[in-house]
Amino acid sequence: MKYDAVFIGSGTGGYPGAVYLAQHGFKVAVIEEKLIGGECTNWGCVPSKALYQVSEAVKTIEKVKGQASYKWEDLIDWAKSIVEETREGIKYLLEASGIEVLSGKGVLKNPRQVIVSDGESKREVEADKIVLALGTDPSQLPHVKFDGEGIISNREALFMSEKPSSILIIGGGVIGVEMANVFSKNKVEVTVVEIMDHILPFTDKDVAQALKTYLAGNGVRVKEKTSVESVEKSGDKYSVKLSNGESLTVDKVLIATGRIPKTRGVGLEETGVSLDKKGYVVVNDECRTSVENIYATGDVIGGPQLAHKAILESIAVAKRIAGKESFKLDYHLVPITIFTGLEVASVGYTEKELAAMGVKYVKVKLPIYYLAAVKIKGGRNSFVKILLDEKGERVFGIQVVSPNASEAISAYLPLYLGKLSLKEAASTPYPHLTVSESLRDVVEYLLGEPVHFIRK
Amino acid sequence: MKYDAVFIGSGTGGYPGAVYLAQHGFKVAVIEEKLIGGECTNWGCVPSKALYQVSEAVKTIEKVKGQASYKWEDLIDWAKSIVEETREGIKYLLEASGIEVLSGKGVLKNPRQVIVSDGESKREVEADKIVLALGTDPSQLPHVKFDGEGIISNREALFMSEKPSSILIIGGGVIGVEMANVFSKNKVEVTVVEIMDHILPFTDKDVAQALKTYLAGNGVRVKEKTSVESVEKSGDKYSVKLSNGESLTVDKVLIATGRIPKTRGVGLEETGVSLDKKGYVVVNDECRTSVENIYATGDVIGGPQLAHKAILESIAVAKRIAGKESFKLDYHLVPITIFTGLEVASVGYTEKELAAMGVKYVKVKLPIYYLAAVKIKGGRNSFVKILLDEKGERVFGIQVVSPNASEAISAYLPLYLGKLSLKEAASTPYPHLTVSESLRDVVEYLLGEPVHFIRK
Repeated sequence: MKYDAVFIGSGTGGYPGAVYLAQHGFKVAVIEEKLIGGECTNWGCVPSKALYQVSEAVKTIEKVKGQASYKWEDLIDWAKSIVEETREGIKYLLEASGIEVLSGKGVLKNPRQVIVSDGESKREVEADKIVLALGTDPSQLPHVKFDGEGIISNREALFMSEKPSSILIIGGGVIGVEMANVFSKNKVEVTVVEIMDHILPFTDKDVAQALKTYLAGNGVRVKEKTSVESVEKSGDKYSVKLSNGESLTVDKVLIATGRIPKTRGVGLEETGVSLDKKGYVVVNDECRTSVENIYATGDVIGGPQLAHKAILESIAVAKRIAGKESFKLDYHLVPITIFTGLEVASVGYTEKELAAMGVKYVKVKLPIYYLAAVKIKGGRNSFVKILLDEKGERVFGIQVVSPNASEAISAYLPLYLGKLSLKEAASTPYPHLTVSESLRDVVEYLLGEPVHFIRK
Repeated sequence: MKYDAVFIGSGTGGYPGAVYLAQHGFKVAVIEEKLIGGECTNWGCVPSKALYQVSEAVKTIEKVKGQASYKWEDLIDWAKSIVEETREGIKYLLEASGIEVLSGKGVLKNPRQVIVSDGESKREVEADKIVLALGTDPSQLPHVKFDGEGIISNREALFMSEKPSSILIIGGGVIGVEMANVFSKNKVEVTVVEIMDHILPFTDKDVAQALKTYLAGNGVRVKEKTSVESVEKSGDKYSVKLSNGESLTVDKVLIATGRIPKTRGVGLEETGVSLDKKGYVVVNDECRTSVENIYATGDVIGGPQLAHKAILESIAVAKRIAGKESFKLDYHLVPITIFTGLEVASVGYTEKELAAMGVKYVKVKLPIYYLAAVKIKGGRNSFVKILLDEKGERVFGIQVVSPNASEAISAYLPLYLGKLSLKEAASTPYPHLTVSESLRDVVEYLLGEPVHFIRK
């Protein structure tokens, strides 16, 4: 079989570009080893946000001194049903677009041939263009390895058939804090261990601090500058020793320290596709690999491991293949969103990055708990932080820490893009009783005319 | 006492402008007859969104076959505490800005003098400029009048000490449907009666239909083209006869059919301030009344009765008084937001309005239940509708019907404003697992290159 384009991987780096090309008349195949939709749909954003939705509802009911009760298995079943429905939706998109879905592992034989093996049989497909949307696997630690039982990754943590009474989360990155939030609101005893100075080490300390305080307020024990020395099975449980001398016993250990690109054993290097030291596929700013007709998109090329980044890379590559006008993704424009009750959403540069680059900046940090929407959603430590050039004209970065920040950041994007001036934003009637409304008040402050903040 | 500016009313039409002027060195007083913050803070958006937050949480818990339980009085107490905190916040803003708050009813003696009477004493204040932010009162019907017991307005409905077992809501406007949603999710038997063709008569029928289906799915009985013939007290309950021949007996009757501007008995006409036939203050596009030094803002001038409209009018007027560059509000840019689980948010012109103006338009209506965020939040009938000129270049109107639409509409605003082109929006990485993300997919469709929709 010969195709105009073959995508290896049907996740967010794969399916959008495949659909784009198919809808433009190209003959397209998608090779998928596991489940259509990849990590995000099956083991990542989708099930975690389903659990998140219910966890936040529990918290809301408790705010009025009430109680929410449900069976853990019903929660998991519901999350599974959302995952399945989402997966079926992507499957429908692929089918309705006339894309051939090939089940099995794709291994490059040469730059234009891929062998698809599903364990039983092998078949060869030819492709003018190949897009590697291979994704990543969860990584384990040298001294703490997945054991198929209680030492687990996100893939098992989201679908546990029984609710653990306690869990140790190794790694205070996005997955770690999101799972800590969900588990703690389900009354699981949670300890998060982060080896670096603070959780969310990629972002600014004050952001991490706000989230740490929030998590602690929900009963999460956060141990920073701390590592795990050993994990030993003892009966049904695990005995853990931490670098600070503490010992604890937990039901489950979730390793969320990082990811490994799925680039080994799939014929990449043999075909001339360059990988970096960590195994990620090396691409240029058009997602082209070192081999002329091979592209790579999504988590497997590194950078922010976010679905919306992968979706746009996939579409941009498809446009290039189709010979249409395409675009290059500005990676600093990719918002980071963390769904943790007190959500974190940011776009542009952090203080850390600006300092590292030696760029001088002005910081404006405004608490937004005054907003009734934030009070109602329970975001006591909420704030908006804007980083500007010294003239106060160019926006370098925006960080929104508050409930619903993941939605509100989209209102802020045009400001970072320079598409909406401060003056224009100040006279735009963002709706009352939303978090997005903060934008009006924040720009009023930046313009030196605050109404909802007292100038000190 | 002599002031540079006196605001009558401390609601969203009053306090923002007062704070602006005070922060610019003007001597400002605010006269408030009831509670600081006005209708929105005390009897409107704020308490209703507090009840809303909890009601949606109940629904979420029920989605996983669970149960949420709390005492009604705890819910109301919590909503009251949010109201109080919000009110205190505005009070602080006023005080910290050095504004004098005068408690009492303000009556114009002449264009530069206001008499403030608090029942016991009267005092006169002088003002160079006066801003009328008088607000509105709920209106009753000729044959159904508030009785201080069970026939009530929004003001009582949001703070009932006991949960009614049944309620009749007269009027399917914004207040009517929001309250219907909250009560139904609290297991109150709700009947909504709307005299017009459909609920939300100011918007398009398909939007109203989607909400009607949603409300019905939550047990609300919606009777359109129906009016109330009579309401009679019988014991603790009310016997109601509807125009369709039906009879029902309910605990409470909420009248939500409209508002009356608070313009009588406050010396307006005597001072030369023109009112329209319905009693609203007549203003020009700068919120100037027929009297040179008197402005009016917020609900009392008519137009969309929304807090974000009032806030911007108040600030725009303050800028004018301060001699600063001001702005004129584009009233079609004021988003309408309805918080009903399946939320409705719209900006620009409706189909109804375009048809009435004889403007030809193209309609693109896309279901967005494919988004995992929408599935998780339970928005089966969600859609985005975009109305464009015939060339597909200018956006006339945007309607988002979905959970979280109230936040997502702010992401759409720059599109309506023409500040972000379709192409720019298509390559902007709106974050995954949000409703705002629909924007990318919708503009891809508008550009003729849909990835998340199958072109029919």
